[in-house]
Amino acid sequence: LYGAKLQRAGHDVHFLVRSDYEHVRERGLTIESPQGDFHLPQVQAYRRVDEMPACDVVCIALKTTQNHRLPDLLPAVTKSDGVVLVLQNGLGVEDAVARIVGPQRVIGGMCFLCSNKVGPGHIKHLDYGAITIGEYRADGSAGGVTDRMRQLADDFERAGIPMRLAEDLLTARWKKLMWNVPYNGLTVVLDCTTADIMRDPESRTLAEELMHEIAAAAAASGRTISPGFIQKMLDDTAKMVPYRTSMKVDYDERRPMEVEAIFGAPLRAAEAAGARCPRLAMLYRLLKFLDERNTRHRNG
Amino acid sequence: LYGAKLQRAGHDVHFLVRSDYEHVRERGLTIESPQGDFHLPQVQAYRRVDEMPACDVVCIALKTTQNHRLPDLLPAVTKSDGVVLVLQNGLGVEDAVARIVGPQRVIGGMCFLCSNKVGPGHIKHLDYGAITIGEYRADGSAGGVTDRMRQLADDFERAGIPMRLAEDLLTARWKKLMWNVPYNGLTVVLDCTTADIMRDPESRTLAEELMHEIAAAAAASGRTISPGFIQKMLDDTAKMVPYRTSMKVDYDERRPMEVEAIFGAPLRAAEAAGARCPRLAMLYRLLKFLDERNTRHRNG
Repeated sequence: LYGAKLQRAGHDVHFLVRSDYEHVRERGLTIESPQGDFHLPQVQAYRRVDEMPACDVVCIALKTTQNHRLPDLLPAVTKSDGVVLVLQNGLGVEDAVARIVGPQRVIGGMCFLCSNKVGPGHIKHLDYGAITIGEYRADGSAGGVTDRMRQLADDFERAGIPMRLAEDLLTARWKKLMWNVPYNGLTVVLDCTTADIMRDPESRTLAEELMHEIAAAAAASGRTISPGFIQKMLDDTAKMVPYRTSMKVDYDERRPMEVEAIFGAPLRAAEAAGARCPRLAMLYRLLKFLDERNTRHRNG
Repeated sequence: LYGAKLQRAGHDVHFLVRSDYEHVRERGLTIESPQGDFHLPQVQAYRRVDEMPACDVVCIALKTTQNHRLPDLLPAVTKSDGVVLVLQNGLGVEDAVARIVGPQRVIGGMCFLCSNKVGPGHIKHLDYGAITIGEYRADGSAGGVTDRMRQLADDFERAGIPMRLAEDLLTARWKKLMWNVPYNGLTVVLDCTTADIMRDPESRTLAEELMHEIAAAAAASGRTISPGFIQKMLDDTAKMVPYRTSMKVDYDERRPMEVEAIFGAPLRAAEAAGARCPRLAMLYRLLKFLDERNTRHRNG
């Protein structure tokens, strides 16, 4: 979706494509969106990084379950003065990228987006779409808003992508987890959509309790999230189009779920900071069980 | 199973039977058991309590989700000097019975039994089978071991039913919950058997964490359960025949689950006693959501 929008705005975009390569190479990309459908008949699609040029900005849209591939992918496509925008879910995902390309070349990004792939090269955008970006700092400190963040945001904004600039990447990451933990986790465990969670008083309360645990974990890590933020997120999600979360889609398609990035990493951070998150810990165990059973055919 | 064993031992047993009435009336009861299969071609089966005689001992084997029927059922079948043996799961289940027949006529009982109904009038006994009984006291105090408990246990023992006499009913109830909460709850949420829970390290640890919460709730209510008890229960369950728990059977058959008796009542008791049980609370909410969705077709 984002790559298609950037190409439509005139940028020189190169797509590393896996399973849909043949289709995208021959027929391009199709976007359905409440902001207007569009089709790009031709895109620069690649199957391997050694066929690609080095780029100024590399956007990682890979699932974190595939991060073991990053050392083979990133060096070839990143210019020596280029930046890597880590558009992934979870906590600590920038650390692995920093080890590959160096900490000064990493910007973290979070997509607030309801979107599903509905066919080969065919994206259905349902709701939202903003990206929040923040400078990565190896010591976990706030990086402030930098010129290169503003440049990057300018390019994206002109392509029709709403951008938010975060003074502190980790605060933004914790805030994003406050949505991802309850909604990704509970839609899988309860086999339902976000709307089902908000409709039932028990699951709605449980989502809220999970948010409070994440807020407490963030606070123990020195990141304060205002109480009003939780209420706004609950209200926004209740109003949202009924959504099958990305983790639910992965589970239904029997792909590995991002359990470690979204649940394991914040749980370990919370424990290291002395915060108690029993519901997060329980959700983590339930999802590990389900993920193991769901992907057993892959493991042998 | 217990009624059939008592009749086989020569007792005058009367069965109140619901859905299987015609079958049981015509063909009796069939028991498959590792202790020996047997068949009773004729049993005294009834569809309505007003056709039944008043009995010395009334065994309640009804699910707690049907307890609203007890005021219509119990008075007719209980002799004025008879006792009611409450063979139900959960906490506080004797209170409702005591309000109907008076507190001095109530004995609580817990079945440690793996058994499923596999057809009309056809019981398959898989493992275990002992019953623990204890005197009910309206004030929640320990009733000690009484003569009528010994008499009742004698009759059952001679029918081949292992009996244990509890000095304190509530201690026995909390101990039973330490199995019922993790295994009934997790087999439903994770769609699996007890063996699956014990095989996976995450679900096994979660079961153990839930047991510790129940033990803490029991301790807050003045009932001490030794730490060795948890380890023994884990070991015993790991060695047990893979079991689809009674709550899982109810869920799969789209019958209401005993969520309030097994999860709601101990949760409220824990909170009243000042114990924190976040995993129990989360499991309660997950099961309430699943139960509501699963039985929605009944509700309209």
